[in-house]
Amino acid sequence: MTKQAIGFIDSGVGGLTVVKEAMRQLPNESIYYVGDTARCPYGPRLEEQVRQFTWEMTHFLLDKDIKMLVIACNTATAAALEDIKKKLAIPVIGVILPGSRAAIKATTNNHIGVIGTAGTVKSDMYKKMIQSKDKKATVNSLACPKFVPIVESNEYNSAIAKKVVAETLKPMQNKGVDTLILGCTHYPLLRPIIQNVMGKQVTLIDSGAETVSEVSTILDYFDIAVDSKNKEKSERCFYTTGSTQMFQEIASGWLGLEEMNVEQIKLGSH
Amino acid sequence: MTKQAIGFIDSGVGGLTVVKEAMRQLPNESIYYVGDTARCPYGPRLEEQVRQFTWEMTHFLLDKDIKMLVIACNTATAAALEDIKKKLAIPVIGVILPGSRAAIKATTNNHIGVIGTAGTVKSDMYKKMIQSKDKKATVNSLACPKFVPIVESNEYNSAIAKKVVAETLKPMQNKGVDTLILGCTHYPLLRPIIQNVMGKQVTLIDSGAETVSEVSTILDYFDIAVDSKNKEKSERCFYTTGSTQMFQEIASGWLGLEEMNVEQIKLGSH
Repeated sequence: MTKQAIGFIDSGVGGLTVVKEAMRQLPNESIYYVGDTARCPYGPRLEEQVRQFTWEMTHFLLDKDIKMLVIACNTATAAALEDIKKKLAIPVIGVILPGSRAAIKATTNNHIGVIGTAGTVKSDMYKKMIQSKDKKATVNSLACPKFVPIVESNEYNSAIAKKVVAETLKPMQNKGVDTLILGCTHYPLLRPIIQNVMGKQVTLIDSGAETVSEVSTILDYFDIAVDSKNKEKSERCFYTTGSTQMFQEIASGWLGLEEMNVEQIKLGSH
Repeated sequence: MTKQAIGFIDSGVGGLTVVKEAMRQLPNESIYYVGDTARCPYGPRLEEQVRQFTWEMTHFLLDKDIKMLVIACNTATAAALEDIKKKLAIPVIGVILPGSRAAIKATTNNHIGVIGTAGTVKSDMYKKMIQSKDKKATVNSLACPKFVPIVESNEYNSAIAKKVVAETLKPMQNKGVDTLILGCTHYPLLRPIIQNVMGKQVTLIDSGAETVSEVSTILDYFDIAVDSKNKEKSERCFYTTGSTQMFQEIASGWLGLEEMNVEQIKLGSH
């Protein structure tokens, strides 16, 4: 049982920020990753379509006998977590609850900001989750539709990225938030720029990193974690619906892997 | 179901550091707390006896229909978690795994220190847990048998506390650890002094605070968290086997509660 991989799914390369944390915090675990790059971004799509795409990635990984599924995409979590969790026998975890919890833990003035895709912000899931746990918290959300395309085109260190981030975040700067949730797994790649724009007094919450802590909790709770004593090497397999070359460029740089197993796959009818 | 309280147990007042975090991160939840002050400290006791005492506290709270049990004591976690978790139908959480996980997440040089009671250090549970997750990590443990009595006697801000902490931690100072686990729930009351002795470059891990994040994860996973929409006020009940006055003095100061419901109880044959 424990040798099975953990599955991660995302609209593109964003979920790799979660994988990076998983490789660090859970080095013994095998990882299968699907990035639906060909149909990215999910943010502007209809909820029903996002749910369908998310199920397609899920089925692909279920066929590979994963022991746990991480929906490493906020838009997909908002649209499909509840449905998928209800229907699968393995543990399923999204990124919104871990991010919400970490923000409640971090804030000292109870003013929390959330940035995410149009789909995530429209779902209002972060606000709902946070206020269901602590009704005194105020939550300001802001959609940043230009961020994902910047990351997917490997421009996240560029001058354009700096300009776009500064312009987009302006409405968040005077909200008095002391904690800002990066409510999209693509955003940690823009973290230095976002921190610079918001100021160092604002705590940035990487929902992906927080999610890995929860993955670890659940693995231990159900006693399905891989122990260091296990002699088999952990596997990392990456699947994309888009260009393997572009995926590999971003992924190998971000994960610091020299060799990567990236395979192109087809999902649905794209 | 969700209106039921979460039970917390400890050898004395130490678990209140976990309760403080629970009140902050989970304000909607009701809390029942048992501190076995009359038989504190547990650290120097035989494992079998600690296990028996822990079961006595557990049975007391099971009679009060708790929905989840938190063993908010490292010594009791090391001695009894596995046994109790196996035998109860409700979720049971200890403090050692959350502390281990947080340390792996926090360290950048893979040198982790652990301070705890003689019982906790002898059990070597932190080292086992950490290295089962990441065999590259080195773990140095140090027993600090004088810390719990200082906290239980409400001397944790005194000059004596400063002297004892400085002397006790000397062997830990040249180990090159960048992360130190406060592997006893009493120790966060000594946190400023410990931080001062270790230097600000060392990240202190409060196993209790980390445990509350896991409590929240498990509550949500099993869908038994209390929602803000619930109109009933959350309850906080405190039970001690020792002096209610001493307990109340420490607890009200630490938790910032003006009024507290503290009741003396008898457990076993003490």
